[in-house]
Amino acid sequence: MSSPSQPDSARPFLSWQRISDWANEHYRCRDFSKDEKIPTRAGLLYLVQRGAVRLVGNAQVSATVRQKGSAARIPLVAAEEAFLGFVGAGQPFEIVAQPPFTLQSFSHVDQTTIIWLYWNDLDTWPHFRREVLDAFRRQHQRKLLWLSTLGQRRTIDRLLGFLTLLIDEYGESCEAGDYLPFPLTHAQIGSAIGSTRVTVTRLMGKLRQRGLIQNHGENLICIPPGASWSQQAHTNYESLP
Amino acid sequence: MSSPSQPDSARPFLSWQRISDWANEHYRCRDFSKDEKIPTRAGLLYLVQRGAVRLVGNAQVSATVRQKGSAARIPLVAAEEAFLGFVGAGQPFEIVAQPPFTLQSFSHVDQTTIIWLYWNDLDTWPHFRREVLDAFRRQHQRKLLWLSTLGQRRTIDRLLGFLTLLIDEYGESCEAGDYLPFPLTHAQIGSAIGSTRVTVTRLMGKLRQRGLIQNHGENLICIPPGASWSQQAHTNYESLP
Repeated sequence: MSSPSQPDSARPFLSWQRISDWANEHYRCRDFSKDEKIPTRAGLLYLVQRGAVRLVGNAQVSATVRQKGSAARIPLVAAEEAFLGFVGAGQPFEIVAQPPFTLQSFSHVDQTTIIWLYWNDLDTWPHFRREVLDAFRRQHQRKLLWLSTLGQRRTIDRLLGFLTLLIDEYGESCEAGDYLPFPLTHAQIGSAIGSTRVTVTRLMGKLRQRGLIQNHGENLICIPPGASWSQQAHTNYESLP
Repeated sequence: MSSPSQPDSARPFLSWQRISDWANEHYRCRDFSKDEKIPTRAGLLYLVQRGAVRLVGNAQVSATVRQKGSAARIPLVAAEEAFLGFVGAGQPFEIVAQPPFTLQSFSHVDQTTIIWLYWNDLDTWPHFRREVLDAFRRQHQRKLLWLSTLGQRRTIDRLLGFLTLLIDEYGESCEAGDYLPFPLTHAQIGSAIGSTRVTVTRLMGKLRQRGLIQNHGENLICIPPGASWSQQAHTNYESLP
């Protein structure tokens, strides 16, 4: 059950308490520790009761055609994993597979609690079903913005766009601006923006130098108010190289 | 109204005929010619009755800080436009803005017909509302797959992944495989995968050489059955450079 100290804003579903109680009674919720894989099945609906979930995609594809006769010499490696975003407390998610793509979910922080339901279970709560569907509608809108920034040619623009969108959605206020309350590795960031850990580390340094991002504590990312995009958008147009 | 020659599969909404009649009676539909901008307002719901819509995003952001004193010498240029996908016949869409991002919609082919509704209009058709929300849920799932492929490091892999997803969703069968029934410029493709027109032209040539894509007619893209990802996925792993 949700702790009374958590703000209501983190509980977008009006019927949350009822669903929460029902899940407890029917053993339909489970706790996960950081980075644990959440076992999922297609067709089921999952709700993040507490904590945060990390969605990861696999594109098991390569445009490289194996040369005839060289099969044995080409090592099989795991496909590239892409960080697809967070699912915060109070949000629904579902995991679909569409070969050659697979999606997976991991608890991103300790003490992440997940509730699962069959879509049929929602027949009892038609209003809640609509809230869930509306939440997916909003998530879809966010992903369109995310795709807008990933279409940018320069990796540093994709990086700043990606961080700004994440902090806009999940950020918490601090003295220096807004910060992302979860750690995110440079490899994870690279996997989201089509880049590498090494490049992300280098470009994060540039963004810090220019005052567009800051550190919050040891490993959290903060965007100072002066560096916010809405300001940038009107002052920093420039032609591309 | 939908022509009787169109297959039912292009009309996912059961209540389609009723909505279509209602829109005609209430002057809530309009025809657009190719590449015409569809005027939209936030909070309204749009349905593609016929044809196809192209969604385009703008990220008006740059990570480059303007140097002091040089303001006058830096030209202001339009922000980068990113192709965010199609909305096919029978599908809903809505246009949200979240500064510094803007979304826009264009008719992608001639004779595209758009119906518009207020969300409140759907109070009359609760079943239809659920169908619309379910459609957004499926669109969201598709965008997660799209993000999976955009996370790949090599541009050629992003390109093949992008084309495969588009053809998987919108493709029509031909003798040589499945083809995308709409033309898409190399600049549009580049804007979706974070690359340039020039690079896309070069990599499309490579994919053609390797038999992973073909031309269909003059300017449509076809994926032959042997080159499909589901096969690739199990035969063409290789280590990244």
